[in-house]
Amino acid sequence: MDPRPVGVFDSGLGGLTAVHELRRILPSENIIYFGDTSRVPYGGRSAEILLQYARQDVRFLRSFDIKAVLVACGTVSTTALPALQQESDLPVLGVVEPACRRAAVRTKNKRVGLIATAASVRSGAYERTLRRLDPEITVVGKACPLFVPLVENGRFRRGDTVIETVAREYLEPMKDLGLDTLILGCTHYPLLTEIIGEIMGPEVELINVGQESAWELKRTLQSLDLLAPEGSGGVDLYASDQPEDFALQAGRFLQQQLQGTVHGVDIHRY
Amino acid sequence: MDPRPVGVFDSGLGGLTAVHELRRILPSENIIYFGDTSRVPYGGRSAEILLQYARQDVRFLRSFDIKAVLVACGTVSTTALPALQQESDLPVLGVVEPACRRAAVRTKNKRVGLIATAASVRSGAYERTLRRLDPEITVVGKACPLFVPLVENGRFRRGDTVIETVAREYLEPMKDLGLDTLILGCTHYPLLTEIIGEIMGPEVELINVGQESAWELKRTLQSLDLLAPEGSGGVDLYASDQPEDFALQAGRFLQQQLQGTVHGVDIHRY
Repeated sequence: MDPRPVGVFDSGLGGLTAVHELRRILPSENIIYFGDTSRVPYGGRSAEILLQYARQDVRFLRSFDIKAVLVACGTVSTTALPALQQESDLPVLGVVEPACRRAAVRTKNKRVGLIATAASVRSGAYERTLRRLDPEITVVGKACPLFVPLVENGRFRRGDTVIETVAREYLEPMKDLGLDTLILGCTHYPLLTEIIGEIMGPEVELINVGQESAWELKRTLQSLDLLAPEGSGGVDLYASDQPEDFALQAGRFLQQQLQGTVHGVDIHRY
Repeated sequence: MDPRPVGVFDSGLGGLTAVHELRRILPSENIIYFGDTSRVPYGGRSAEILLQYARQDVRFLRSFDIKAVLVACGTVSTTALPALQQESDLPVLGVVEPACRRAAVRTKNKRVGLIATAASVRSGAYERTLRRLDPEITVVGKACPLFVPLVENGRFRRGDTVIETVAREYLEPMKDLGLDTLILGCTHYPLLTEIIGEIMGPEVELINVGQESAWELKRTLQSLDLLAPEGSGGVDLYASDQPEDFALQAGRFLQQQLQGTVHGVDIHRY
């Protein structure tokens, strides 16, 4: 048993979809969440810049006495995770491995799609992991660079011509490939589940990377005897710019009303 | 006469539309351009963060022996310019004052529209400047937060449903207000001139802030006897992330083929 909090970070609001799953799956855990709103979005940046930002994000989280780090950002998970793990004496989990394990179990025809940011698709991390798990799996990746800016601007509702046009443009070419499983490789994308599901059809199973990483965190904490004692955990939110705006939008990603305030952080000091 | 270069910066590619005008209006000048691609876009960030980023951008430009700074970023011009000017012994010009002077001269019915980033509209800088120039002018501002991400993702062509839908959504409500002048308050927007002009109609004059600031720079250099000796000036480009991608896209903003390479800069060191 270990009552210390878990640190979670993302470029902005998206990682809160993983926090929603963590609250459901690990209700006793305390969570410290950091959204790097002063530098969002991450998805178009280089691996070098992403590692630099991710290191600062981890240093900030480690200014608290945390017991583990969940990288709730698809882009950082695909580009910087091995370095972060090597540098840390704490468990550092990303979203790629758990999502790939789930996809490998669920796919029947071994044709798995991946939608993610440009940096994530370019990294090849999902393909490498899936092929390691099952060399027979074919992976088709598609970068969706406008999804994060659109979601962060509140454009994720059905009936919104802009997000629906962009989603059709990205996804229609994937429809003829006979995929039966599609990894939503970015924690912003669960807000687009309905729109993506409608385009891809009911025969394609969508994998929520935040949800899979929450289950993985539970297994990891269990195996290391680091689970929190039973009780009601909570979430403390930090953002590196405009914490008030972050607070206004956080509820939609957490799927519950925000308790308390969002604290500001000068991430450039870390 | 002064052969030293002029420093120009923006969050990303947009400021190159101002460089295009500078090359036309001041062909003998040498220009050092910095695009802060490691932190683009600026338009949704707070005034505090913007000042912090702008100070680093200026410090980088001043690592060269420059004679003046042009802030070719609407967002920084509206939120951080007075501080940058106060801290500098060099002339530091923004895009707001010259654009407002042009609009005040051109408007006949004293109804001026402004489209810009959220941070620029929130700042009230264009309204304050226009009212100072002519208290009878009515200003209607509209934030267009998706224009920069769309333009930076190459979505600015006529016939592109996404940019046309977003543009109509932002601009249709401005059409019934009887404006005769519209300030495009962001240096990314000249790439949208055709789309914006088609929606607003031929009776609305569009003001290109980059172009007006280039004329203002010429007047300033002239008055301080800082113009370069006659000759053919050039442009050196720097970017804080993915200089190769920047090079691929720069030509479209400069309206000419790129000469030479784009150099990488670690802006976090400045």
